[in-house]
Amino acid sequence: MNITSKPSDTTELSVSECWALARSAPVGRLAVTVGGGPDIFPVNHVVDHGTIVIRTAAGTKLGASDKQPVAFETDGYDVDRGEAWSVVVKGVARAVEELYEVIDVLQLPVFPWQGGPKPYFLRIEPRLVTGRRVRVTGGHTVNAPAG
Amino acid sequence: MNITSKPSDTTELSVSECWALARSAPVGRLAVTVGGGPDIFPVNHVVDHGTIVIRTAAGTKLGASDKQPVAFETDGYDVDRGEAWSVVVKGVARAVEELYEVIDVLQLPVFPWQGGPKPYFLRIEPRLVTGRRVRVTGGHTVNAPAG
Repeated sequence: MNITSKPSDTTELSVSECWALARSAPVGRLAVTVGGGPDIFPVNHVVDHGTIVIRTAAGTKLGASDKQPVAFETDGYDVDRGEAWSVVVKGVARAVEELYEVIDVLQLPVFPWQGGPKPYFLRIEPRLVTGRRVRVTGGHTVNAPAG
Repeated sequence: MNITSKPSDTTELSVSECWALARSAPVGRLAVTVGGGPDIFPVNHVVDHGTIVIRTAAGTKLGASDKQPVAFETDGYDVDRGEAWSVVVKGVARAVEELYEVIDVLQLPVFPWQGGPKPYFLRIEPRLVTGRRVRVTGGHTVNAPAG
């Protein structure tokens, strides 16, 4: 996707819009603090009962995030509407360990960014959900994969 | 983009491949540490002389990142090749303040996620550049915007 634009309008999204958009995009990124500095991982996610559940093989690194504050971001671009959007969910991460949770989560469609025999699941219990939609009013060029 | 897949193969990318891919994608995300916890911002970026330059209106928040460690991520999906990729650049952020730098950066094509009269530029001097390509070998559904 190549986007070149000049002016834009920004609209804050409602929480319900944020959840709907987050649900529509299975690819996101998780930011964590490791050793005092930030790290970021591409993740697959689903919206599950008002939480974000992510799957990754980076269990070793993300294990340190259990019960710690994290920030999750997902975004997308709507060519037809000439709009981009971004949703950020901040909250506390919790490793998915309970049996019923694992069974539930394993049934969720996830796209493994990081292969490996031991996928790791983390649930983000949201503290803050924010989002914005950006209207691309200038000229733009989109070179996105065909549907 | 909706992707549903089961197995996958992961390939680590060379640094030169990482830069080439980062250059091809103008949309990324910046992770910073604020108040001990992570925050994440969608940003527009360019690859400029072996660094990542980002533009954002979130100057107030990102101002605290000047000279601090940050992590930048960008990713994409290649439908034709059935592959997804992600590149992460970790390094130290530095506000772009020098006049010649601002002039240089202002000429770069950037897509403003966050509108505002005072765009803010930050340069990431890389300490670590990593990336991976994920081969989607299972069935997948892609619902991406047409080019």
